Amino acid sequence: MSSHPTPPLSLSQKARRTQEQPISFLITTALQNPHLINFAAGLVDPYTLPVRETKAITERLFSNTNRGRSVLQYDTTSGLADLRVAALAHIERMEGKPAGAMSLTADDIMVTTGSQQALYLIADILIDPGDIVIAANPSYFVYTGTLTSLGANVMTVPMDDDGMQVDAVEALLERLEDEDRLHKVKLIYCTSYFQNPTGLTLSAERRPRLLEITKRFSKHGRILILEDAAYRELIYDGDALPSIKSYDTTNEYVVISHTFSKPFAPGLKLGYSALPKDVAHAVLQQKGNHDFGSANITQHIALESLRDGSYLEHGHTLRDAYRKKRDVMVRALDRYLPKVAGLHRTDPHGGLYVWLTFPVGVNTSRTGEMFQTAVQRGVLYVPGDYCFQPDAAGHIPVNHLRLSFGQVALEQIEPGIHILGDVIAEQLASVRSATGERSAIPESAI
Amino acid sequence: MSSHPTPPLSLSQKARRTQEQPISFLITTALQNPHLINFAAGLVDPYTLPVRETKAITERLFSNTNRGRSVLQYDTTSGLADLRVAALAHIERMEGKPAGAMSLTADDIMVTTGSQQALYLIADILIDPGDIVIAANPSYFVYTGTLTSLGANVMTVPMDDDGMQVDAVEALLERLEDEDRLHKVKLIYCTSYFQNPTGLTLSAERRPRLLEITKRFSKHGRILILEDAAYRELIYDGDALPSIKSYDTTNEYVVISHTFSKPFAPGLKLGYSALPKDVAHAVLQQKGNHDFGSANITQHIALESLRDGSYLEHGHTLRDAYRKKRDVMVRALDRYLPKVAGLHRTDPHGGLYVWLTFPVGVNTSRTGEMFQTAVQRGVLYVPGDYCFQPDAAGHIPVNHLRLSFGQVALEQIEPGIHILGDVIAEQLASVRSATGERSAIPESAI
Repeated sequence: MSSHPTPPLSLSQKARRTQEQPISFLITTALQNPHLINFAAGLVDPYTLPVRETKAITERLFSNTNRGRSVLQYDTTSGLADLRVAALAHIERMEGKPAGAMSLTADDIMVTTGSQQALYLIADILIDPGDIVIAANPSYFVYTGTLTSLGANVMTVPMDDDGMQVDAVEALLERLEDEDRLHKVKLIYCTSYFQNPTGLTLSAERRPRLLEITKRFSKHGRILILEDAAYRELIYDGDALPSIKSYDTTNEYVVISHTFSKPFAPGLKLGYSALPKDVAHAVLQQKGNHDFGSANITQHIALESLRDGSYLEHGHTLRDAYRKKRDVMVRALDRYLPKVAGLHRTDPHGGLYVWLTFPVGVNTSRTGEMFQTAVQRGVLYVPGDYCFQPDAAGHIPVNHLRLSFGQVALEQIEPGIHILGDVIAEQLASVRSATGERSAIPESAI
Repeated sequence: MSSHPTPPLSLSQKARRTQEQPISFLITTALQNPHLINFAAGLVDPYTLPVRETKAITERLFSNTNRGRSVLQYDTTSGLADLRVAALAHIERMEGKPAGAMSLTADDIMVTTGSQQALYLIADILIDPGDIVIAANPSYFVYTGTLTSLGANVMTVPMDDDGMQVDAVEALLERLEDEDRLHKVKLIYCTSYFQNPTGLTLSAERRPRLLEITKRFSKHGRILILEDAAYRELIYDGDALPSIKSYDTTNEYVVISHTFSKPFAPGLKLGYSALPKDVAHAVLQQKGNHDFGSANITQHIALESLRDGSYLEHGHTLRDAYRKKRDVMVRALDRYLPKVAGLHRTDPHGGLYVWLTFPVGVNTSRTGEMFQTAVQRGVLYVPGDYCFQPDAAGHIPVNHLRLSFGQVALEQIEPGIHILGDVIAEQLASVRSATGERSAIPESAI
């Protein structure tokens, strides 16, 4: 259009470090194939969204002119004061502990644009390029991407059925201390409930132990634990565990981030975190620059849902609906997945995900035959390699995949898993015939 | 509470560069003195907020179950597609030009959490520590604070009644080229309509000229203009000028950011920007890490307000209400300010601010007698020094102040200005008696 050549943009180092999110490819694939049975989407179940409840709340808010005006005005950077009070009361309810036992007041609660913004801001105030963050492998890939864009060195520990291997965290910290790199460690990232992507939960025993290790290695400066509790309230069986944060009785080492997206509605795009005071102060300064406060309307809606009981009521509805979907998915997997050594599924007691591990040699990645064939036959999953950080040799395993029963309709789950089971059986047969033997069973893989 | 000393947080360089926003002090002062007549708050008029309109919209949204579900679900990082289409149509209406004449499609529109988030993200993708941003002196202090936190070297040019001095931008760029620093210049920040804090508008003649200069000096890389159009639609008299962006016919050099906060309601916390494609791509990656999309509910409300005409209708209401407040403030200033050389007020034709300039020697800063006396007598203003970057010698002028007629009630304006006028008269008298003569009149000061 212009005759002169456009001079190139000179992007910041951060922008140049930032990769396109892998999920973009999956969203594009889903949009191009609208009839796919979508086990990839991290969206929530549309049929359980609280339309009626939100209608009642907004009617109430805007029928009172004074309240309506305050809903439509600016509020503060840290969030609506009443919502922070209500969120703290909700934390007390979940922990079964008074806030004082965790040295928390409403001033230590911050409201963010989804819990993602809290995760971002925590990284932003801590990470200089080259700083170390310890995370499980696999982990929530949007956040590991965020950490990488900030220049973090994301070092990982394996997972097992009890969640992040805390002994491995200790061993890694010991090694880093030996290598004189302990001062580089800023953060330990842990999704403690029904992790994305594995569906696994950090065991009760590991929770205080992770905190104890973190304190012990906070020699050159405080190491923070960032506890991502996004899926906490989507619990379908078993006991509700206290958070890692609940053991941080002095409010010094743990930030816990919750969201309204999973247990109520993503359209609010609201999260709330409890933070140590100095962390809260630093995060608040950054948030002032980012947006000086999340949308006030949605904060008032969240507040009213907590006050009028519709939030808690809706939690029951969601748990019943997702439990059913989880059951259908797990039963279908047990029926349609080939019975071979080295093929393993997780057994999630909450959240939205089941994680499959295949024998080494099977390739689930987007360029591989399994993924392509699955899409051709109408099923989409998340290739597991998106969720891993490379090991020291730069290797990323390609023998896993993530299935979500979040958005997909209940009646699509069995037929979809049937198709996927067939595709997997064919792939396993072709790998066996190519190698002329059964693949080795990776002992430590989940 | 704990017996061991807490190890210190090791904050990132960015966090350490980030200053507490000066506005915090003013907010605290206002909260401690609830009866103050608040000419400092950048809030909007509460009585004109669209409570009835938003009630009608939310009733409509949540009465349709399918629409309600999509409102409560996630949407995309760049924003609701229909809202981006409607926002582009609104831009066409404001410019009186088809989008094609600016090489814009809805794909070039991005929705953000207020326009502040757009301003932040633009800086984030461009600025490495030491990079140069050119801004007017004075400028919107939240953004200059943001730039400083990213390590930008904010270099300034003066303003006059025609807005940012574009000749001074050219002279600065020439000087930087001579000093071999042109490659460091990434961004020119310009609030082109009714600037915060001065109320001044960039003249029609200067608009294409600023773009021409920017192109001419884009020798080592593209320099972007960030056009902050937050107050554009709050126009009370005179012609609506086309934006700087409207001259960027190839969509390469200018990002324009608009907001729903000022012309509709801050509670939505939504803005929308039109960006060159490569800029939009880089910003989108960052926003994916920040929050992967602003609150969907508020996007649907904004969309409906544009569709059902309530947005445009509300604009008329706002302009009538603020015009009246502006008139009362300006008349009161002309009545109650002492008539002395070197005391000057701007004559805003839109926006929310009037800017006062005093003879050099007068001190409006928060530690000075004028500010303290004004608060004691019940009036709050923004000390002008908050809005300035230091000059080469580190000097910041303290002889200005900002008055807002946004939040303050209509009937409080005249009594408030009367009090302030008395305080100012006393201060000027005491400065004159201290110096034994009239202070010099600063020729270039606005």
